Amino acid sequence: MIVVKIGGGDGIDYDAILSDIASSGRVSVIVHGGNAEHGRLAQRLGKEQRMLTFASGHVSRYTDRETMDIFEMAYCGKINKMLVEKLHALGVNAVGLSGLDGALLRGKRKKELIALVDGKRRVVRDDLSGKIEAVNAAFLTLLLDKGFLPVISPPALSEENEAINVDGDRAAAMIAASIGADTLVILSNVPGLLRDPRDESTLIRQAAGIDEIERFAEGRMKIKLLGAKEALERGVTRVVLADARRERPVTLALEGNGTVITCRR
Amino acid sequence: MIVVKIGGGDGIDYDAILSDIASSGRVSVIVHGGNAEHGRLAQRLGKEQRMLTFASGHVSRYTDRETMDIFEMAYCGKINKMLVEKLHALGVNAVGLSGLDGALLRGKRKKELIALVDGKRRVVRDDLSGKIEAVNAAFLTLLLDKGFLPVISPPALSEENEAINVDGDRAAAMIAASIGADTLVILSNVPGLLRDPRDESTLIRQAAGIDEIERFAEGRMKIKLLGAKEALERGVTRVVLADARRERPVTLALEGNGTVITCRR
Repeated sequence: MIVVKIGGGDGIDYDAILSDIASSGRVSVIVHGGNAEHGRLAQRLGKEQRMLTFASGHVSRYTDRETMDIFEMAYCGKINKMLVEKLHALGVNAVGLSGLDGALLRGKRKKELIALVDGKRRVVRDDLSGKIEAVNAAFLTLLLDKGFLPVISPPALSEENEAINVDGDRAAAMIAASIGADTLVILSNVPGLLRDPRDESTLIRQAAGIDEIERFAEGRMKIKLLGAKEALERGVTRVVLADARRERPVTLALEGNGTVITCRR
Repeated sequence: MIVVKIGGGDGIDYDAILSDIASSGRVSVIVHGGNAEHGRLAQRLGKEQRMLTFASGHVSRYTDRETMDIFEMAYCGKINKMLVEKLHALGVNAVGLSGLDGALLRGKRKKELIALVDGKRRVVRDDLSGKIEAVNAAFLTLLLDKGFLPVISPPALSEENEAINVDGDRAAAMIAASIGADTLVILSNVPGLLRDPRDESTLIRQAAGIDEIERFAEGRMKIKLLGAKEALERGVTRVVLADARRERPVTLALEGNGTVITCRR
């Protein structure tokens, strides 16, 4: 089985991805992001976007309740339903779900964070984000057995049943592992992992595990590698980080165009 | 089985409705609206809201593509996920779905409408709205058999696989009939059908069929009665139009507080 994660950055050609998925008939689950859409919607609504910067250098969105509402409108409303509608038009019986639905994605909320907010070091207690811990695989299997294509987006549901923002790449990794998928394709607006992030010709084509390559990752790519590692540790055979900005992106990724990461031998 | 439609007008106390549903354990499916939320979001986004006024006097929202995006953000993003999150917090394993998901609600788009737009008579061809025609009851049954509580909202999917705005009350009627529910409760911000819409003490408590009472209906209430009629014609035993603005609104409705419409003898 193949799981495809569609990134939420600018420049993603959804039509190319979906028609490739529809004509190949080989994809079992889609997971998607929506970060660029979220940013645009927040801006239009006049909601100030604040970021949390951690000691590790990692930056994430400060998700208060109003931000979660906007998140759900962008991810679960606009992007998810757009993908489902387009898939039906391509003859695919898609079902759009968030991680809340049927407690599909369970996570743990980070109840106390130390981060820089607006340049000042602060203890943050009201951030609605966390880390995915479990997937309701029985629910997914129920849908897969009936021929549905699940189209899944964050948020996840915390142990206290709050909606929490979780990383989409790591969610896709957990989903792929939970259903015993052999391949996870992570599509975004870069060609894969680059030795030099400013030079697309320095694409790393193959790696066994992430130990040898993780030093090349910057920003979002670090999280993608973490997702890849988690997927491989949990039994997924290969993870392909590939470019979403071209025709037949899923087919090309499955043919090895991108960064193909397999288990360390 | 009981289906509850939660209206999308202002003044709906969602917490009261959901805690009543959770503690009663008797509701199989929730259908919801989101009209007030849609209106607020459209206004904040600066999207002009245009209405279609038909010869019958019926008024509906002119749904162009941008309006459909806003519709999906309000209904499928904000309201649907808010209800699902709150239900999980109450211990109910809710699954939020739109009519697009798994082609749950199929409808027919009205391809040519004659209506007043901004006071002028026009032929409208790009309105993304229509009439619900079928429910994917097999999909609903799959979820019900596993103990999930489906929480459903428009849009529906047209024959050409476009998202279309359909009336929520009539969708609830079709859903109730499709799963063989005996009772449909339609909760909104009025006590039921009133002989005099300006006087809540003139509540009509009982009716056999809608022939004797439809002359009292104005505006949105006409559509609710049409939904009630369609549900009864398709085998639902009783439809209760009841007030959402009170504690235990579902229990009170099931006890007969509201307008109880049963089949004509």
